[in-house]
Amino acid sequence: MDQDQLRALFEQVRSGETAVDAAMTRMRHMPFEDLGFAKIDHHRALRHGMPEVIFAKGKAPEQVVAIAERLLENFQNVLITRAGRECADVVLERLPCGEYFPLSGVIRFWRDRTVRGKGKIAVVCAGTSDMFVAEEAQLTAEVMGNQVDTINDIGVAGIHRLMHNRERLTEARVIVVCAGMEGALPSAIGGMVSCPVIAVPTSVGYGASFHGLAALLGMLNSCASNVTVVNIDNGFGAGYVASLINRL
Amino acid sequence: MDQDQLRALFEQVRSGETAVDAAMTRMRHMPFEDLGFAKIDHHRALRHGMPEVIFAKGKAPEQVVAIAERLLENFQNVLITRAGRECADVVLERLPCGEYFPLSGVIRFWRDRTVRGKGKIAVVCAGTSDMFVAEEAQLTAEVMGNQVDTINDIGVAGIHRLMHNRERLTEARVIVVCAGMEGALPSAIGGMVSCPVIAVPTSVGYGASFHGLAALLGMLNSCASNVTVVNIDNGFGAGYVASLINRL
Amino acid sequence: MDQDQLRALFEQVRSGETAVDAAMTRMRHMPFEDLGFAKIDHHRALRHGMPEVIFAKGKAPEQVVAIAERLLENFQNVLITRAGRECADVVLERLPCGEYFPLSGVIRFWRDRTVRGKGKIAVVCAGTSDMFVAEEAQLTAEVMGNQVDTINDIGVAGIHRLMHNRERLTEARVIVVCAGMEGALPSAIGGMVSCPVIAVPTSVGYGASFHGLAALLGMLNSCASNVTVVNIDNGFGAGYVASLINRL
Amino acid sequence: MDQDQLRALFEQVRSGETAVDAAMTRMRHMPFEDLGFAKIDHHRALRHGMPEVIFAKGKAPEQVVAIAERLLENFQNVLITRAGRECADVVLERLPCGEYFPLSGVIRFWRDRTVRGKGKIAVVCAGTSDMFVAEEAQLTAEVMGNQVDTINDIGVAGIHRLMHNRERLTEARVIVVCAGMEGALPSAIGGMVSCPVIAVPTSVGYGASFHGLAALLGMLNSCASNVTVVNIDNGFGAGYVASLINRL
Amino acid sequence: MDQDQLRALFEQVRSGETAVDAAMTRMRHMPFEDLGFAKIDHHRALRHGMPEVIFAKGKAPEQVVAIAERLLENFQNVLITRAGRECADVVLERLPCGEYFPLSGVIRFWRDRTVRGKGKIAVVCAGTSDMFVAEEAQLTAEVMGNQVDTINDIGVAGIHRLMHNRERLTEARVIVVCAGMEGALPSAIGGMVSCPVIAVPTSVGYGASFHGLAALLGMLNSCASNVTVVNIDNGFGAGYVASLINRL
Amino acid sequence: MDQDQLRALFEQVRSGETAVDAAMTRMRHMPFEDLGFAKIDHHRALRHGMPEVIFAKGKAPEQVVAIAERLLENFQNVLITRAGRECADVVLERLPCGEYFPLSGVIRFWRDRTVRGKGKIAVVCAGTSDMFVAEEAQLTAEVMGNQVDTINDIGVAGIHRLMHNRERLTEARVIVVCAGMEGALPSAIGGMVSCPVIAVPTSVGYGASFHGLAALLGMLNSCASNVTVVNIDNGFGAGYVASLINRL
Amino acid sequence: MDQDQLRALFEQVRSGETAVDAAMTRMRHMPFEDLGFAKIDHHRALRHGMPEVIFAKGKAPEQVVAIAERLLENFQNVLITRAGRECADVVLERLPCGEYFPLSGVIRFWRDRTVRGKGKIAVVCAGTSDMFVAEEAQLTAEVMGNQVDTINDIGVAGIHRLMHNRERLTEARVIVVCAGMEGALPSAIGGMVSCPVIAVPTSVGYGASFHGLAALLGMLNSCASNVTVVNIDNGFGAGYVASLINRL
Amino acid sequence: MDQDQLRALFEQVRSGETAVDAAMTRMRHMPFEDLGFAKIDHHRALRHGMPEVIFAKGKAPEQVVAIAERLLENFQNVLITRAGRECADVVLERLPCGEYFPLSGVIRFWRDRTVRGKGKIAVVCAGTSDMFVAEEAQLTAEVMGNQVDTINDIGVAGIHRLMHNRERLTEARVIVVCAGMEGALPSAIGGMVSCPVIAVPTSVGYGASFHGLAALLGMLNSCASNVTVVNIDNGFGAGYVASLINRL
Repeated sequence: MDQDQLRALFEQVRSGETAVDAAMTRMRHMPFEDLGFAKIDHHRALRHGMPEVIFAKGKAPEQVVAIAERLLENFQNVLITRAGRECADVVLERLPCGEYFPLSGVIRFWRDRTVRGKGKIAVVCAGTSDMFVAEEAQLTAEVMGNQVDTINDIGVAGIHRLMHNRERLTEARVIVVCAGMEGALPSAIGGMVSCPVIAVPTSVGYGASFHGLAALLGMLNSCASNVTVVNIDNGFGAGYVASLINRL
Repeated sequence: MDQDQLRALFEQVRSGETAVDAAMTRMRHMPFEDLGFAKIDHHRALRHGMPEVIFAKGKAPEQVVAIAERLLENFQNVLITRAGRECADVVLERLPCGEYFPLSGVIRFWRDRTVRGKGKIAVVCAGTSDMFVAEEAQLTAEVMGNQVDTINDIGVAGIHRLMHNRERLTEARVIVVCAGMEGALPSAIGGMVSCPVIAVPTSVGYGASFHGLAALLGMLNSCASNVTVVNIDNGFGAGYVASLINRL
Repeated sequence: MDQDQLRALFEQVRSGETAVDAAMTRMRHMPFEDLGFAKIDHHRALRHGMPEVIFAKGKAPEQVVAIAERLLENFQNVLITRAGRECADVVLERLPCGEYFPLSGVIRFWRDRTVRGKGKIAVVCAGTSDMFVAEEAQLTAEVMGNQVDTINDIGVAGIHRLMHNRERLTEARVIVVCAGMEGALPSAIGGMVSCPVIAVPTSVGYGASFHGLAALLGMLNSCASNVTVVNIDNGFGAGYVASLINRL
Repeated sequence: MDQDQLRALFEQVRSGETAVDAAMTRMRHMPFEDLGFAKIDHHRALRHGMPEVIFAKGKAPEQVVAIAERLLENFQNVLITRAGRECADVVLERLPCGEYFPLSGVIRFWRDRTVRGKGKIAVVCAGTSDMFVAEEAQLTAEVMGNQVDTINDIGVAGIHRLMHNRERLTEARVIVVCAGMEGALPSAIGGMVSCPVIAVPTSVGYGASFHGLAALLGMLNSCASNVTVVNIDNGFGAGYVASLINRL
Repeated sequence: MDQDQLRALFEQVRSGETAVDAAMTRMRHMPFEDLGFAKIDHHRALRHGMPEVIFAKGKAPEQVVAIAERLLENFQNVLITRAGRECADVVLERLPCGEYFPLSGVIRFWRDRTVRGKGKIAVVCAGTSDMFVAEEAQLTAEVMGNQVDTINDIGVAGIHRLMHNRERLTEARVIVVCAGMEGALPSAIGGMVSCPVIAVPTSVGYGASFHGLAALLGMLNSCASNVTVVNIDNGFGAGYVASLINRL
Repeated sequence: MDQDQLRALFEQVRSGETAVDAAMTRMRHMPFEDLGFAKIDHHRALRHGMPEVIFAKGKAPEQVVAIAERLLENFQNVLITRAGRECADVVLERLPCGEYFPLSGVIRFWRDRTVRGKGKIAVVCAGTSDMFVAEEAQLTAEVMGNQVDTINDIGVAGIHRLMHNRERLTEARVIVVCAGMEGALPSAIGGMVSCPVIAVPTSVGYGASFHGLAALLGMLNSCASNVTVVNIDNGFGAGYVASLINRL
Repeated sequence: MDQDQLRALFEQVRSGETAVDAAMTRMRHMPFEDLGFAKIDHHRALRHGMPEVIFAKGKAPEQVVAIAERLLENFQNVLITRAGRECADVVLERLPCGEYFPLSGVIRFWRDRTVRGKGKIAVVCAGTSDMFVAEEAQLTAEVMGNQVDTINDIGVAGIHRLMHNRERLTEARVIVVCAGMEGALPSAIGGMVSCPVIAVPTSVGYGASFHGLAALLGMLNSCASNVTVVNIDNGFGAGYVASLINRL
Repeated sequence: MDQDQLRALFEQVRSGETAVDAAMTRMRHMPFEDLGFAKIDHHRALRHGMPEVIFAKGKAPEQVVAIAERLLENFQNVLITRAGRECADVVLERLPCGEYFPLSGVIRFWRDRTVRGKGKIAVVCAGTSDMFVAEEAQLTAEVMGNQVDTINDIGVAGIHRLMHNRERLTEARVIVVCAGMEGALPSAIGGMVSCPVIAVPTSVGYGASFHGLAALLGMLNSCASNVTVVNIDNGFGAGYVASLINRL
């Protein structure tokens, strides 16, 4: 669908030739626009009802700024993930309305703070070393309009800590659990609650953790039936799906 | 919590000493009972509000029957997964109220057919070879009170088929996608819809599929943000989580 | 050291030329004997103070019988592991003083039942499917003179069951924990007790469990400091080391 | 075949003793020459009808210059791949007729710009992060005399973008598709076109992408029959084979 | 596109309302039809200009027959791959016009024997054990209208055999090379010829061949630039792509 | 259990309402305290009777100092592992009572030097390159109150060296063996002694050692029955378990 | 080189036109012959001075017989490896001069028993389960004209057994060592002797032995410098290379 | 065996009490000496008849110097491998009689240049990038008294180059072949010669070479029977074993 077709569509809507519903339907799966090195899909937000995200790793700061500027013309909320300090400096100098979180490397533009989630999302991490992933999940869930309850450092080797947080966990509508090393926490929490649990293996560990593989395999083999898994260190993905679920 | 304590609790409830709510709370995380070779937790259903499931693989048919009989005394709906023909013959002879599905190896006892899910769950499979996994997901979702829309054989190499089913996919509240080989279908569907997508890698394929590893890795690396993953061939888990989400 | 040297040594001891202590020292690391297809080391029992074990898998029943007969001439207690039904039939016909345990495939000759362990060894398994490994550990620990407390089916997804068994666990002097799938139970138990925990990953599971690899990696990365690990399905090794520790 | 033999052969050709065809045949599989640290095969170009290529990674800039100078005496077109900035600086100072492309690390000497390909080669990449590989493929195909149509950023999660480019894709005689993460794009494109598709997995991604392994496995398991695969990040190889096919 | 739309389209063509070219274009990416358990895409042949293929492994003989019957109503040539003896017996009893090749497990329906390929395709295998894969490639290439030159048992450890076949190899327009174990043959042949080489790793070998992984990795790392790779044992895919190339 | 509950408990003990034993029991599995970014569990020492440990890798020096200061208020002995030089400089400036061991990266606060172990722990390493791991084990065992006998550089390829140290090895009550490359030393030592052997694979090696994987697999497959294994480079874990065993 | 050329060559030799040495040189790398499904290279024996070998696994008994008959017309000694009982029955019925060794699956035709090796080859195996591989090495070395000293069951966990066999080991000119599980024996023997050691990992073991991978990695990382490695279970290859070395 | 025992032994030899042969035998497997952080075994040279080697990677330059100085007091020839530039600077300043080879990182002390090898060792590498490994093999073989013929850059994709070097290859008594990427060269050379071939996989390559794994697996699966393999990049080991063989 090129620009001409788009104009034609709007004219049809204006003239009443095409109903708004029909126009919405036609637009739902179609349009995007050329930015030179990357195609930006303004309709993804419409389609998913979600803010836009830029994965900064492997992109030059200037690329990130160019994409971010464009997006901010069309969207209230934009998230940049995996941004190093230098990238953040360049971005925030040009776009000072953002906020940088160095632990997770997220830059957040959070202009529309409407609450959309129906309940609370709990974001749990097993150890302090896993907090960089949990923060990415938390910031994502917040910018997507959710109330987030963050619980840190409750590993499976300290079951009494788990028990201590049972109330807060059972109050959540969906739970994101970040854990490295053996990745056992999602199973333990999954057994305590009735809601969906999204497990995020982290690359925390050494030796036979193989950069998160041990945790990933552990979570995929969870004996708790309410656990699904995302990629290693993918806090964004977990926060995103948790938000989708919490909107239902 | 042993039998004596349980009786005492009920007497306290009867006498008014303990309120019903308090009794429910106390029971929520505690009791189970000894069956000899396996502890059956009657409260898991209460906790999760879900039917019970028996994983038959690696258990003798007699073990399966014994556990199933016990569960059916307490629960309306019971699911037995990964049951071979011989196991099914033994079980159904003793428990004729069940139904056997040889493709997926599921035996289903579906006595309470109340609809609990708020919307429709779509269960999609990429090829006819993946149907044994999709059927497990479908049977699980149905027994948990959901309306299921099954869509077979729409692989990523036939994009027009995907397009053809776009309507049905966008109508679902949550989608389970089963695919082997390269496991690309969840990404393609994830990009078309705004709801959560639960991806199930299947062991279908040969050579460098490494019994589902290729599909698993593909799904974990999905470029669509609304995709989470369960274990290879774990149709049950996908149907279970989809049901949890559809109840919200 | 051949037979002549051995005779010479005993003559020296008899004549007083060599002290008994010195003779013991010389024998400690030396002698063995030729049986044709396998060298049997009678001194391993003396060295380790332990019964002998035959790994039956991959050996013909006749080979197993020949080795067993020879060992039983010199040792009170002998363990045959990984023996199938046919092997067991051949062995027990010729050596009816043994007992066969079909779940674990162990044949046990337990003639000296002296208790040598100082405390109790707990052998725990996460699910009923893991019992074939736990039984191997239990039978090994018993034949080595230990009191064994067996606890079945207390997985990490049912934390209240763990809590329920806390007393029994804290009473043990050393604990063997057998678990497949995500292998998280040793971490949870390790955090509850102060004694050494020997973790045995089992091959129970499917898909991304990769025949026990997921459980193995999980246990190696345990966040509990008191956990060590043995090979997948190696119940014998775990029972053996637990016995060594319990003798201290 | 040493220099003397080569001279003798040309003299035979001059004198008519040997026909040109016969001389061509003799030369086809034989000669090379000693450069000290590397043997340069001037006949590879004749054999393949293709320019020469130097893989710069792991070579000192001086080595690269020495090989390049030698080759440029005999060949019109030379390609240096995987050259870092420092290497490029040294090379271009000595050989200023080249052009450096920092994204892909290619230095190109393109003196003979004859078009040899019969049709158009499409070079597609799934995301902007994959462009460093796509550029290597494009530069290779161009220097080998092909018209190249470059299409960036059309991932499988945005099917409408794929559809939008259908015309351009179906016009190509052979297509190179570069994708990281789940590597699903070649399957989707393969299903849309009837021409050969050469899939290049890229190392783009994190966590369970395992440096391109996930994409590689995905492509090898493609359900589209017209897909073949080259090594991770091997844009050169893909461009090379695409050129061979386009010359047919 | 349902049946009504298809009829409408043909009526438009008949009436002259729609030109044949336009109708072809509309049909190119759209239609398919419901067969119950599998969607058959009659247009894939039109789209690729190729016969249909059924992957028999994991399908019941009755399923295979049902799909095959349907396809044979619409297509001249059909290929069934990975069919065991029992499957072949059932298929050929019902569809006696087919021919079964037990080495490769292919059932071929070859009714239209028009030659479409422009040159010759060479299908080479490294050892006699690799012939089951080479045969699948050969049968595929033949049914797609190509002249095939089969060369067996010329491994890389017998270079003189390679040299002996140099003529035949250089005469081919595209070469399929099947090799297990170290998978080195494609590199050696790739260096001898100027045409595209499609490498098929086979699962032939033992120990560290890891069911074809060694050969697969070897081929992906080929030092010859004209080599691309398909999945382990995927003779069909190699024959298919070779046919596409040979039609150019 | 929050502060109020703790105070109440102590008041109950003071007043005689609760016996000391009962209070100990209640405290055993319960309390911890909030430090902001990490929960410190003061009772772990009581539970395990062991000093506290901080894993410094991936934590900022300031985080490490904050946790260390807090711990040192409550514990005599604290161990910081995997601390780089910069981290050590920051820590020791603020907490000069510690000692830094650059080879292993351990910072040790060893104020209570009571001997608690019943016998001697031997810490053996196969090569000088493995000493960084052995030192971590040694420092851990010492701070936990054990006499440690360190034996360096006795690899399996120099059996006479092993023999030479036989006496010292047989005198130990438990042995920690650190080895990289093929990781064979634990088997050889395990066969020489009757006590438990804790094997630590190290990441020492290159090529097919795969960062310690070869040693890890070797140790897990040890033919000596008295060997258990911990994670790659996990000297701390080995020293910790050895101490637990030596206290029995 | 076809039959005509071969005849011409012999005629040239007969006539004195070509010297015998020159004819030998020309034949050295050239001829072979067509047998239909496999090319047999009669000159390999001349080239290597070795008997012929047929790898029976994956070949039909009839294929094996056909190749064997042909070879036995030209060669004194032929070895068939990996032959099952059924294959052996067919072969020996037709070629009764062979001998079958069921443990290793070797069929040996040993008609020329000339001793060619200069010294003794020791073939060692770590456990009785490894004997099937050691036997293949032994039979190969014998048929190639070597005196073989077989030493069974001297694992690394029984160092005194190793010491006991030191004399026999130091007398060998080259040693083949077969070991499964942790594969440590080659290192221990390598450190005791000064001759080349050829290590054969075997698939003996379970769990984390991963079908011989653990032993393979261990041997590749051997700390003894005189160790080289062949494929898992490749007794033939080890016996073959040992024979080449022993002929020097 | 300590210094006192050694002195006593020599005195016994001097006095005639012990024959020289007997003294040699006693010394053969026993003595070593304490250097503090590493035990140096002066008798290894005597045992193997070979110079000493120090693996510098992971050792401080000072450690390397200390070991080297000590060794040079007792041995004529010493080899230091994997030494970086800084290490070499420190070593050569203190021990200027050495020579540094920066490509391979070897420092060589070659004072006794007696030729001990019976024939010539060929050291071949597939590409210029593999030369760093080939040089390590060459320097090792030379310092051990062998004549070495080095052949660079004859990959398997240029078979005519191989043919060109056939003479030189067949003249060698043993051949070391270093190759990265697909590692096919040892198979090709192994098929051309009758002598033992020692294959060294190198870490040269990218993507699916997985740091030398592809080459390693290729070589282990070689279809040439005269090939054995050492660890990735282990030029030293290959040169060492080649020297042992060439001395026979």
